[in-house]
Amino acid sequence: MLLKWGIAAAGKISNDFVTALKALPLTEHKVVAIASRSQSNSDKFAKTHGIPNAYEGYDKLAKDENVNIVYVGVLNPQHYEVVKLMLENGKHVLCEKPFTMNEKQTRKLLDISKEKNLFLMEAVWSRFFPAYDKMIEVIKSGEIGEVVQVTVEFGVPISHVDRIKNKDLGGGVILDLGVYILQFQQYVFNGLKPTKVVASGHLNEEGIDSSVAAILTFPEGKTAVLSASSFTKLACEGVVYGTKGCIKMPKFWCPTTLEVNGVVIEFPLIKNEGEFNYLNSAGLAYEAEEARQCIMKNKIESSKITHDNTLELAQLMDKLRAELGVVFPADGESY
Amino acid sequence: MLLKWGIAAAGKISNDFVTALKALPLTEHKVVAIASRSQSNSDKFAKTHGIPNAYEGYDKLAKDENVNIVYVGVLNPQHYEVVKLMLENGKHVLCEKPFTMNEKQTRKLLDISKEKNLFLMEAVWSRFFPAYDKMIEVIKSGEIGEVVQVTVEFGVPISHVDRIKNKDLGGGVILDLGVYILQFQQYVFNGLKPTKVVASGHLNEEGIDSSVAAILTFPEGKTAVLSASSFTKLACEGVVYGTKGCIKMPKFWCPTTLEVNGVVIEFPLIKNEGEFNYLNSAGLAYEAEEARQCIMKNKIESSKITHDNTLELAQLMDKLRAELGVVFPADGESY
Repeated sequence: MLLKWGIAAAGKISNDFVTALKALPLTEHKVVAIASRSQSNSDKFAKTHGIPNAYEGYDKLAKDENVNIVYVGVLNPQHYEVVKLMLENGKHVLCEKPFTMNEKQTRKLLDISKEKNLFLMEAVWSRFFPAYDKMIEVIKSGEIGEVVQVTVEFGVPISHVDRIKNKDLGGGVILDLGVYILQFQQYVFNGLKPTKVVASGHLNEEGIDSSVAAILTFPEGKTAVLSASSFTKLACEGVVYGTKGCIKMPKFWCPTTLEVNGVVIEFPLIKNEGEFNYLNSAGLAYEAEEARQCIMKNKIESSKITHDNTLELAQLMDKLRAELGVVFPADGESY
Repeated sequence: MLLKWGIAAAGKISNDFVTALKALPLTEHKVVAIASRSQSNSDKFAKTHGIPNAYEGYDKLAKDENVNIVYVGVLNPQHYEVVKLMLENGKHVLCEKPFTMNEKQTRKLLDISKEKNLFLMEAVWSRFFPAYDKMIEVIKSGEIGEVVQVTVEFGVPISHVDRIKNKDLGGGVILDLGVYILQFQQYVFNGLKPTKVVASGHLNEEGIDSSVAAILTFPEGKTAVLSASSFTKLACEGVVYGTKGCIKMPKFWCPTTLEVNGVVIEFPLIKNEGEFNYLNSAGLAYEAEEARQCIMKNKIESSKITHDNTLELAQLMDKLRAELGVVFPADGESY
């Protein structure tokens, strides 16, 4: 089955996504349209990537009958409106993380997906890297015993970057880096719900979170200890401690290695000669293929990042923001 | 100056302390008496270590005029009474950590030390390892920039051990492992007070903490992320993240190496052929010599673990216990 992609937004991540798709068979994935807020940006993006249709604004993309699925790479505060528009026009959607600004927006979009029977997935691309499959396989094998603690750190010196520091852009480390550390522990603990969540951090002058740390406690003595910072480089590693050993996943958001009880296993990145903005973006192809597989099977959600997973991530991010006192305009709206 | 030591309690840690002293000049440190709850244990300990006087009970040790300083290695719930007894009888005191069961007991002992002008130190032996000096030197040099985050993990599978699991023995990871992770961040942040402390963890059937994690936030964007577990082995490492680099201290409670921006520096342990119960116990000699140096200078506290440091550690442990709901009989007493 050929999946015909429309791309919403012509920014850096859209560039990487479209470039990543080029590693996949042309009979299976094709980008047929690009839309952004300005015609000139769309035209430029279309030219760079050889995309036949370039639109100004997202309405035309939503109405393009040639498009099966839309990849949404707009700014965080626009996710909700753009995803809603696409679903209401019968498009499947792959939406960049954070899925939306809060739980309310998330619930609404998941409801529309269900009503319309359309595939909708939060672009938690990490989980489709082969190292994640291996991690789960090792955990299930009992090789590290019972999982007791997950420690994840993600810190990058980006406190000066607009998308992080600005309230208008839906900034903050919780939505940007936090979603990654939260999804990691969620995937490891596999459906187990935390009984307690505490968090603390630092806000910038706009009241936006520059750093956050959180402790999630679960039944049976299990704990997740998470931290994210825009001030400096942290370990950028996920560690799973079991009663008999441990798994380390360096660069856990786009991993190519896994260390199981000290033994390093390599997972070469999907081959791609394109130019990328972000580390290991060639791996965006994994999630694109997952979308195709799900749609072929008439599934509206992926088993690797289910609608429930997405809802829980939104609830956790709301909880972390509440603990730190971070409020966005969207929090005052009803949906 | 020859410091004449009395030893209170004949347990494993006392054995290690006395063995560690043997690496120091006999003209500077001499163990002159041992006391424990039973004469037979004292006799056995005295025989093993060649100690001239062996007492049943701590009163006789407190009254032994030949003793300058008492090393207190009794069980946690007895620290308060034994230290108080020694101070009231004019002895300087080096007391094992955790110093006492809570802030109230700690304040009282610090007050007596001041009133009586006697040296009193919590045995935070870690800080006297040369690697700690080097760590502070590197931080002060600016080599890793401004310190932003400290992450410390200390996990050992000891949830079945009596001293950890039993309420009567003053158990719990906060008092046992927690004091180490708390002292590490305290030493790095050097007097900076946390503006917020949150914690979470798991309790055993006796209501004693089997695991704990805590987040301390400080002014200027600084954070400490700490965890301790009796369920499994964690990284057992302290990491200091600065804006320009990082310092890792493996086995941070008794370190012999330090990694500064990836470069490993070795600090060979003080030479000692004795038999020890605990890892790197030969390093207990460092704190013993610190006690001698302080006493020679008529100081009642060490600059490396001040009375204020000890009070703050007690306050932090009380706070962590309060967050987890761990209560000891001593908490209901007044002092």
